[in-house]
Amino acid sequence: MSLLDRTVQRIFPQDSEARDKAKARLDQLAIPHWALGDLMDLAMDLAGISRSMTPPVARKAVVTMAGDHGVVDEGVSKFPREVTPQMVHNFVNGGAGINAFARQAGAEVFVVDMGVAADLGELAKAGKIINKKVGLGTDNIARGPAMSLAMAQRSVESGIDIANDLADRFDVIGTGDMGIGNTTPSTAIAAVLTGKGVAELTGRGTGLDDAQLHHKIAVLKQILDVNRPDRKNGLDVLAKVGGFEIGGIAGLILGCAANQKPVVVDGFISTAGALIAYTIEPFVRDYIICSHRSMEPGHTAMQQYMGFKKPLLDLNMRLGEGTGGALAMNLLEAAVAILTEIATFEEAAVAGANA
Amino acid sequence: MSLLDRTVQRIFPQDSEARDKAKARLDQLAIPHWALGDLMDLAMDLAGISRSMTPPVARKAVVTMAGDHGVVDEGVSKFPREVTPQMVHNFVNGGAGINAFARQAGAEVFVVDMGVAADLGELAKAGKIINKKVGLGTDNIARGPAMSLAMAQRSVESGIDIANDLADRFDVIGTGDMGIGNTTPSTAIAAVLTGKGVAELTGRGTGLDDAQLHHKIAVLKQILDVNRPDRKNGLDVLAKVGGFEIGGIAGLILGCAANQKPVVVDGFISTAGALIAYTIEPFVRDYIICSHRSMEPGHTAMQQYMGFKKPLLDLNMRLGEGTGGALAMNLLEAAVAILTEIATFEEAAVAGANA
Repeated sequence: MSLLDRTVQRIFPQDSEARDKAKARLDQLAIPHWALGDLMDLAMDLAGISRSMTPPVARKAVVTMAGDHGVVDEGVSKFPREVTPQMVHNFVNGGAGINAFARQAGAEVFVVDMGVAADLGELAKAGKIINKKVGLGTDNIARGPAMSLAMAQRSVESGIDIANDLADRFDVIGTGDMGIGNTTPSTAIAAVLTGKGVAELTGRGTGLDDAQLHHKIAVLKQILDVNRPDRKNGLDVLAKVGGFEIGGIAGLILGCAANQKPVVVDGFISTAGALIAYTIEPFVRDYIICSHRSMEPGHTAMQQYMGFKKPLLDLNMRLGEGTGGALAMNLLEAAVAILTEIATFEEAAVAGANA
Repeated sequence: MSLLDRTVQRIFPQDSEARDKAKARLDQLAIPHWALGDLMDLAMDLAGISRSMTPPVARKAVVTMAGDHGVVDEGVSKFPREVTPQMVHNFVNGGAGINAFARQAGAEVFVVDMGVAADLGELAKAGKIINKKVGLGTDNIARGPAMSLAMAQRSVESGIDIANDLADRFDVIGTGDMGIGNTTPSTAIAAVLTGKGVAELTGRGTGLDDAQLHHKIAVLKQILDVNRPDRKNGLDVLAKVGGFEIGGIAGLILGCAANQKPVVVDGFISTAGALIAYTIEPFVRDYIICSHRSMEPGHTAMQQYMGFKKPLLDLNMRLGEGTGGALAMNLLEAAVAILTEIATFEEAAVAGANA
């Protein structure tokens, strides 16, 4: 049996007993009922995920997956392809957004070469990045599939490998991405899986103007026409219109779910990875925490498709890298503190509400 | 000249040179332009407030002001009045929501007796709370004014005193409140100052049902009829329909602005305090950071009245105590990290966008 199949077999829903036990305590806290709102829902989720009334969240990792995209040849991004490896160096040097936010959150950053179109062997040899390179960038999805089915499986299983490696050392894992052009495959995945039209889902990525946005929409229509992925088959969607880092993110999420760890999903590209994981095994949903709402218009549609009402943060961000996920990690700590540090009416000797 | 008048004379707008300098750096960061959204706006604010390109935010305090309200006699709250002193004990024992969230954020909590209707002398003598008691709860504002104009001024000046004391030791100050019944005076303040109707502004506070909500609206109409505050005069509004802790919060905000410290304003009651401060001196606006959107319907109206588009967090919270402010403090740190830790395109040797 493949690593992917074995992983899927290990994914179960949240534990309802732990959720109920958490709810019973939260209902009795010396505050107006459920007055800490969404963070109390999150506390229940964390109890259900960890099967614990003291869900561990102190040891935090962010995994930033990098890959390149042949579709950049169609002029869908404002930035040249060489920015992907340049940003990998920036991550390694600690000067990127994800480094800054991860430091603030007390999280360690792991950078993974899933398929950058450049030789990053030196960084891998020095132990500064994890080498899971599946190829030197995907093929141009406006002309044919991004990758073979075998490569799609290898992308996903690379992400699972990383989740399995990190599961012993970390309590919470955040997803992140880097890849010039990757809002285009992510939008294609969103269109295939949510069934919504590309005009509605497509955004300006790193900053397209109106004419460039219309061009991107035309390219996306062509991508869907040329590839016609099977929307019941997550690996097929990934192979036809995806990306190596998107597959890695999907695998990371599947691996976190199998290891019963909360996975804090970042923005638009990470959520496309989550959608692939969700198509492979819908129970991953129980382990996903939506960190924020990206400015990319398709983001909300993807979150809602998986049944999430509202992400934790909504700050007009659109950077990726894992920045939204890192930012949300403090909120996970606060949610656990509600469960473990706030006294009940009885413990605090505070009078309850009038009947 | 009174402490209040002297304080108002020390309040100036943000420094536009520091803002511009921060913007110039933020524009060059190796990210798509302004891709960290609202936190980049916040970084500019923090630079403008602190007159620095490395705005200090590490030393954090939350000041939770407690007071009682005579209007509780009208049946406007689900909880009995004795909960106010009981919660003060809970704060001192570290078991309340604000203690949990402040610990997560690395903030110190200061509890102030602004006018609790109980003897808290033991706690004050033991140095566990700050004694600024103006009275044993306000008078019933459904029958007449909450307090005299002199008491209103004393409330505000007590808050200024605390801000002046903390300004040397802390970089960021959060506001907080405790006071059974205090959504009623806060709603009255919102109605007087925003000019909106009480039906639109009034919420369920700690959890009123429909009939209780209608009763609260009727009481609020009576409060406005009976008192007719002068909406041009912040102290008059506070004296007629306010509360001791609301005055303390207003003073704390004025004091932070005078000391050029960012003040993270919590929820509905804290924002009523901010509205009083803003009426006394509109430039306080430049020092206020709106931490979150409370579930109380009048909250957004108050924030918008002061010209704020959107608070940082929106998590269906309605606890008060300073919890929203404490939660937002991590976001201030992230905003500063954008300014101080992310490399520019040039520093990171990353190619910029195509023209």
